[in-house]
Amino acid sequence: MPDLSDLVSRAREGSPRAVAQLVSMVEDGGPAVRELAAELAPHAGHALVVGLTGSPGVGKSTTTSALVGELRRSGRRVGVLAVDPSSPFTGGALLGDRVRMAEHATDPGVFIRSMATRGHLGGLSAAAPQALRVLDAAGCDVVLVETVGVGQSEVEVVALADTTVVLLAPGMGDGIQATKAGILEIADVFGVNKADREGAEATVREIENAMAMGRRGTGPQWRAPVVRTVASAGRGIDELLAAIDAHRAWMDAHGRGDEGRRRRARAEIEAIALADLRAQLRAVSGSAALDTLAGEVATGGLDPFVAADRLRSAAEVDGG
Amino acid sequence: MPDLSDLVSRAREGSPRAVAQLVSMVEDGGPAVRELAAELAPHAGHALVVGLTGSPGVGKSTTTSALVGELRRSGRRVGVLAVDPSSPFTGGALLGDRVRMAEHATDPGVFIRSMATRGHLGGLSAAAPQALRVLDAAGCDVVLVETVGVGQSEVEVVALADTTVVLLAPGMGDGIQATKAGILEIADVFGVNKADREGAEATVREIENAMAMGRRGTGPQWRAPVVRTVASAGRGIDELLAAIDAHRAWMDAHGRGDEGRRRRARAEIEAIALADLRAQLRAVSGSAALDTLAGEVATGGLDPFVAADRLRSAAEVDGG
Repeated sequence: MPDLSDLVSRAREGSPRAVAQLVSMVEDGGPAVRELAAELAPHAGHALVVGLTGSPGVGKSTTTSALVGELRRSGRRVGVLAVDPSSPFTGGALLGDRVRMAEHATDPGVFIRSMATRGHLGGLSAAAPQALRVLDAAGCDVVLVETVGVGQSEVEVVALADTTVVLLAPGMGDGIQATKAGILEIADVFGVNKADREGAEATVREIENAMAMGRRGTGPQWRAPVVRTVASAGRGIDELLAAIDAHRAWMDAHGRGDEGRRRRARAEIEAIALADLRAQLRAVSGSAALDTLAGEVATGGLDPFVAADRLRSAAEVDGG
Repeated sequence: MPDLSDLVSRAREGSPRAVAQLVSMVEDGGPAVRELAAELAPHAGHALVVGLTGSPGVGKSTTTSALVGELRRSGRRVGVLAVDPSSPFTGGALLGDRVRMAEHATDPGVFIRSMATRGHLGGLSAAAPQALRVLDAAGCDVVLVETVGVGQSEVEVVALADTTVVLLAPGMGDGIQATKAGILEIADVFGVNKADREGAEATVREIENAMAMGRRGTGPQWRAPVVRTVASAGRGIDELLAAIDAHRAWMDAHGRGDEGRRRRARAEIEAIALADLRAQLRAVSGSAALDTLAGEVATGGLDPFVAADRLRSAAEVDGG
């Protein structure tokens, strides 16, 4: 077992190797994660976390890579956390697109880590904030969290960001993308990528129409700007970053600068507490008790809610 | 509140309306779900559950629809449960493809329900088996569970099936689809759809090569067949159904006929127990306790694991 204080010190001095090791530790989710969290806690809370999300094919990786370049030009240290929900069905896009990030791989001001989340004790909600804390402690000014694919896990990651960028592209959803419930609530900035393609203006209009209809609560509201980009050519990326920075400034000016950090902490604490409870249940699940209950439910002799009550009682007795 | 016994009786007589109402109840996840489970339990355990999964674009809905037709021709009553992980990013494919199922919508021997899972108390693992139990009790011989999109939730649904069909199509993953970890473990039958397109034979070979390398434990092993289909033209669907039935017969012959049902019950019981624990935590989360803890974690004054311990202690005290 490596000396954790030493690893953390080296990560704070900017050693990419130490950062990589720490993120791997978080990903593995072993018992050392607990000790690591205690080591990192005092050094956390500085980085701005920007979530980037959108359907497969909109150009998330290309946009992320272009944003990294723009952030570096503005002199900021950057972390990239690419979250892969580890589906066997993700297909080839992920690996192919990673190659685009290669141009930043040798820049000492950039840390790039991808993170598989299957099997992690507390799921994405617990692992991602821990990985963010590593990158934060390593001195990143901005951490870009790029999520791959679709589904619940993506929304969870986005919930951990200070600023969320939703990327769309023309011709992806035929008028359905932007109006789907949920997308308006999570977006702080919209990026319409591949803006040189046919249908881009229709996509922009669609977002603007959907926003005009939607409401986001009472009080002063941040209005999510729509930025046109052609990430593969580096176009519009400066505007995209300006929109991200503007959102940050708006939140600070409205006394909401720590909202993202608090939301992240809340989700993380809950996820860890839940993982502990799950582990307690699993300890019982390994025993014959669950098999017996499952057999009774399978044959219709018992309903699953009663079975669940019995399982919980067993866990409480076992767990002390 | 509707009379549950009455609703269940009407569902068992084959009323599509009663079935629809019961699945909606399950989806809503309200308190009635508990009572419903008790009503349904004695009537469950007959239907064969077939999971269909694969990347977006391989033709899941078309294949499901064609399979429904084939099952109807063999005189079986069919349920279809289309599971939508409710991502705002699913895009247009879902709604568009649903249209293909319309040809079966007026057949009294077919129940079609799609199910959104966001926000359900116990997540997919709890809601899907309950919906399956409704369709089972309504007299379905076979229930096809079609999952949309990618990610963890898909794998969870597949774990609930007696027989899992993994669909692939040429040119989707450029040699990565089939060799990805996980796909071999879950597939009982492979369908290579769009088999009239270029690259189909390469996809078949890829699967066969990956299977030749993989192992699936000791003892007698079912070897997943690879079936070529052109679902849009109805080609190969008879073979696909024959492969599904062959898997079923093999499991029965090897004394493993109830494996799927037991696995389903185990997952369901665990999911419900966990949801109850989560609800207990949430009750505390609503209070000032979590906010205070989150604030301390956000500023680095406390690490999240210690915060989680405190949250759990509070929940135990509160929960009695």
